[in-house]
Amino acid sequence: MIDINCDLGESFGAYRLGSDADMMKWITSANVACGYHAGDPLVMETTVRLAAEAGVKIGAHPGYPDLQGFGRRVMECSPQEVEAFMLYQLGALSAFTRAAGVDLVHVKPHGALYNQAAKDAALAQAIARAVVKFSRSLVLVGLAGSRLVEAGSEAGLAVMAEGFPERGYNPDGTLMNRKLPGALLTDPAQAAENAHRLAKEGIAITSGSQTRYVQVDTLCIHGDNPHAVEVAKAIRQRLGQD
Amino acid sequence: MIDINCDLGESFGAYRLGSDADMMKWITSANVACGYHAGDPLVMETTVRLAAEAGVKIGAHPGYPDLQGFGRRVMECSPQEVEAFMLYQLGALSAFTRAAGVDLVHVKPHGALYNQAAKDAALAQAIARAVVKFSRSLVLVGLAGSRLVEAGSEAGLAVMAEGFPERGYNPDGTLMNRKLPGALLTDPAQAAENAHRLAKEGIAITSGSQTRYVQVDTLCIHGDNPHAVEVAKAIRQRLGQD
Amino acid sequence: MIDINCDLGESFGAYRLGSDADMMKWITSANVACGYHAGDPLVMETTVRLAAEAGVKIGAHPGYPDLQGFGRRVMECSPQEVEAFMLYQLGALSAFTRAAGVDLVHVKPHGALYNQAAKDAALAQAIARAVVKFSRSLVLVGLAGSRLVEAGSEAGLAVMAEGFPERGYNPDGTLMNRKLPGALLTDPAQAAENAHRLAKEGIAITSGSQTRYVQVDTLCIHGDNPHAVEVAKAIRQRLGQD
Amino acid sequence: MIDINCDLGESFGAYRLGSDADMMKWITSANVACGYHAGDPLVMETTVRLAAEAGVKIGAHPGYPDLQGFGRRVMECSPQEVEAFMLYQLGALSAFTRAAGVDLVHVKPHGALYNQAAKDAALAQAIARAVVKFSRSLVLVGLAGSRLVEAGSEAGLAVMAEGFPERGYNPDGTLMNRKLPGALLTDPAQAAENAHRLAKEGIAITSGSQTRYVQVDTLCIHGDNPHAVEVAKAIRQRLGQD
Repeated sequence: MIDINCDLGESFGAYRLGSDADMMKWITSANVACGYHAGDPLVMETTVRLAAEAGVKIGAHPGYPDLQGFGRRVMECSPQEVEAFMLYQLGALSAFTRAAGVDLVHVKPHGALYNQAAKDAALAQAIARAVVKFSRSLVLVGLAGSRLVEAGSEAGLAVMAEGFPERGYNPDGTLMNRKLPGALLTDPAQAAENAHRLAKEGIAITSGSQTRYVQVDTLCIHGDNPHAVEVAKAIRQRLGQD
Repeated sequence: MIDINCDLGESFGAYRLGSDADMMKWITSANVACGYHAGDPLVMETTVRLAAEAGVKIGAHPGYPDLQGFGRRVMECSPQEVEAFMLYQLGALSAFTRAAGVDLVHVKPHGALYNQAAKDAALAQAIARAVVKFSRSLVLVGLAGSRLVEAGSEAGLAVMAEGFPERGYNPDGTLMNRKLPGALLTDPAQAAENAHRLAKEGIAITSGSQTRYVQVDTLCIHGDNPHAVEVAKAIRQRLGQD
Repeated sequence: MIDINCDLGESFGAYRLGSDADMMKWITSANVACGYHAGDPLVMETTVRLAAEAGVKIGAHPGYPDLQGFGRRVMECSPQEVEAFMLYQLGALSAFTRAAGVDLVHVKPHGALYNQAAKDAALAQAIARAVVKFSRSLVLVGLAGSRLVEAGSEAGLAVMAEGFPERGYNPDGTLMNRKLPGALLTDPAQAAENAHRLAKEGIAITSGSQTRYVQVDTLCIHGDNPHAVEVAKAIRQRLGQD
Repeated sequence: MIDINCDLGESFGAYRLGSDADMMKWITSANVACGYHAGDPLVMETTVRLAAEAGVKIGAHPGYPDLQGFGRRVMECSPQEVEAFMLYQLGALSAFTRAAGVDLVHVKPHGALYNQAAKDAALAQAIARAVVKFSRSLVLVGLAGSRLVEAGSEAGLAVMAEGFPERGYNPDGTLMNRKLPGALLTDPAQAAENAHRLAKEGIAITSGSQTRYVQVDTLCIHGDNPHAVEVAKAIRQRLGQD
């Protein structure tokens, strides 16, 4: 069965975000925020514990140092900066998996960093370099068909190509800007159909009159909307029907 | 010969603090800031590289999440919070030692956290718990005669008792408040004499008419004043004369 | 009728906290977070606009520079530091009232700063000094019977003494620690009765066998719990019955 | 005589940057950091006091919320966000001028915000809108020939066009990237000659075979390099010779 991942551990201090405990029931991989765009040490500790208890694989979800913008604002950082703050966040989260006696399995950049690394080879390579320096056994997760997945493969890392059943795509296979209409789907049934199609067909990337399909290894379900648990359940059930 | 340690890697972004490269010549252990009270990922990477090149042992120097106050303001955090942000900072720094292929050897709390942990057993135990959870092979460094050293020993960790040749002491063996006259010595010759005395006799703790001496395993040299390198050199030479 | 105030504008970036728009219907004064313990510029702008539209008086709600701890962790700041960051936050909020063409009416410290200023005269005086420097026409709001109210009066400011219908009190008139049982009441009916009693009798401060009552000028309703709007409505209706 | 301005108040907490007290002797306008890219409340208070004592005009120097990057990293913020954090920072600094009994005279964006606003009309207009909302009597300072100066004029604000005697220019009149060779001049005599030329001729903007000159109303001297005071003195003296 295809991997289902979700961004979790995005609460901060007094601020609660997401239904982490409920989502654990429906996913197979948790991407845990590392304190830069979201998350704090207590939240990281709790999220790692919840995932460990649920038998969900744990990955790092590093982002830009921009709590106010939730890591969704593009920041022009040099490859050296990106490499360094990837290492910082990977290390920070690994302390909690280590303390809990579980493995850190994968890493998936967050928000603007994820989107930029899909297109910008230098940024993607900086991310891959940081992962290699930290541990060659981590799996790098990136948008299916993206530079990030390419950079990971070229660096000798295992990679996973990601699809988004709740997001609209541009013809070039990148995600639509969150602010545009159609960028975010909220109907569980539609999300479940998308999930099924992504798992079966992959992502359609259209350039001119040519369309190619890129295989998807993992599906990302959003955890930060009111219907998150319902959508997760619908997707899990739809995928289980085949 | 007695260990000589210094707090380094305390620059942040555009802000430069300390003469890290020069200090490496005179010390045997570097306590590297972890991004909470000082330091950022690029600074951590550079400091770890400088220490590795100089053959200086690398330790973590975690502090309160208070960059504006440089970790010197007391913050009332719960033991759970302290344990969690110790883990966070230990992990973050360990990513850079790992990337550089060197060991993380010790850990020494910074500023207000260090001073509170000298007296507050619950806080000291929280720190020791975090270190044990992260790695039982790390050495915990604390003020000679303090609760922190006690808590480390009780938790089964190797500990090192620290003395400060450039600081004035209170009769109970704690450090004088930095804001009081006599708290900070700047004369290299006097600092060298203090270093020699601390290494030979340890710290004198006076309670009523009783004085006991606590052995010192490592001497801390300050890196953030204009005469830091001069003082370091004077201490190293004075200790070498014996 | 007695003033009813609420701490609002405590969202931050992607994090939503409180039911600001709904609470505006039941209160007469809004204490708006200023970006240190909570709030950001967009949130401040929105909150000021909502209050202005509802005809609710606007005050500043400055706190410690501790977003991770939501301003509830004691920080040992010098009076100079407190005075300076009070000014900073007063100024920041006043830009939004100015842009909206409404008055900044009052100021009420938040969380640990509020609680410490209730007992610590030097801190209370630093707060009062900052308010005087910013504007002598601002009203300083503090715990009924506290040093903060005293310091405000002594500095020549108009003051308002505050009572908390949803909080348990210690015998000396200070608020119970939020972590203790009985510190937070959640039953709307009980909160409404407390509100009525506080408005009629004031706060009972017991020292030995002596009890004195301190008059209350404003009641604080919490905005950050699930029943906030219900409680606010119950209190408003109960007070309206007299 | 032409106005000479300098970015000051860029220290933060324990970190010292610039020779603020010395620079005050050679400049006529101080741009004071407002706590986002640099500066903190105590630093702002001190800088305003130094400027007031020296009879130097005080302006706000707002930047992106990026202390780690010193406001030099491009951040893609919406015009609404920029307008809101301009207001926040204007207000924050104005509290200190108000407390010191002096006027806030001008506003000049910092770093990446300044450079982006030179070219991006929507961003420039957002900045101008914030200034208008805060006070129509503030002077908006921007790069000579830039969109920011245009946007200020269109919004009805008084504007000042700025030239940089210590910086290299691109043919289109924008500043060379700080990381390129020739972007930063360090020789006082050369800087003084540039200052004289800028004051006399303005900035040369070359497009194809056409060159036009844009008038300069104020010269910016850098305060954050070791020769800053020397350069400032050389410029002041060279300009005084005419």
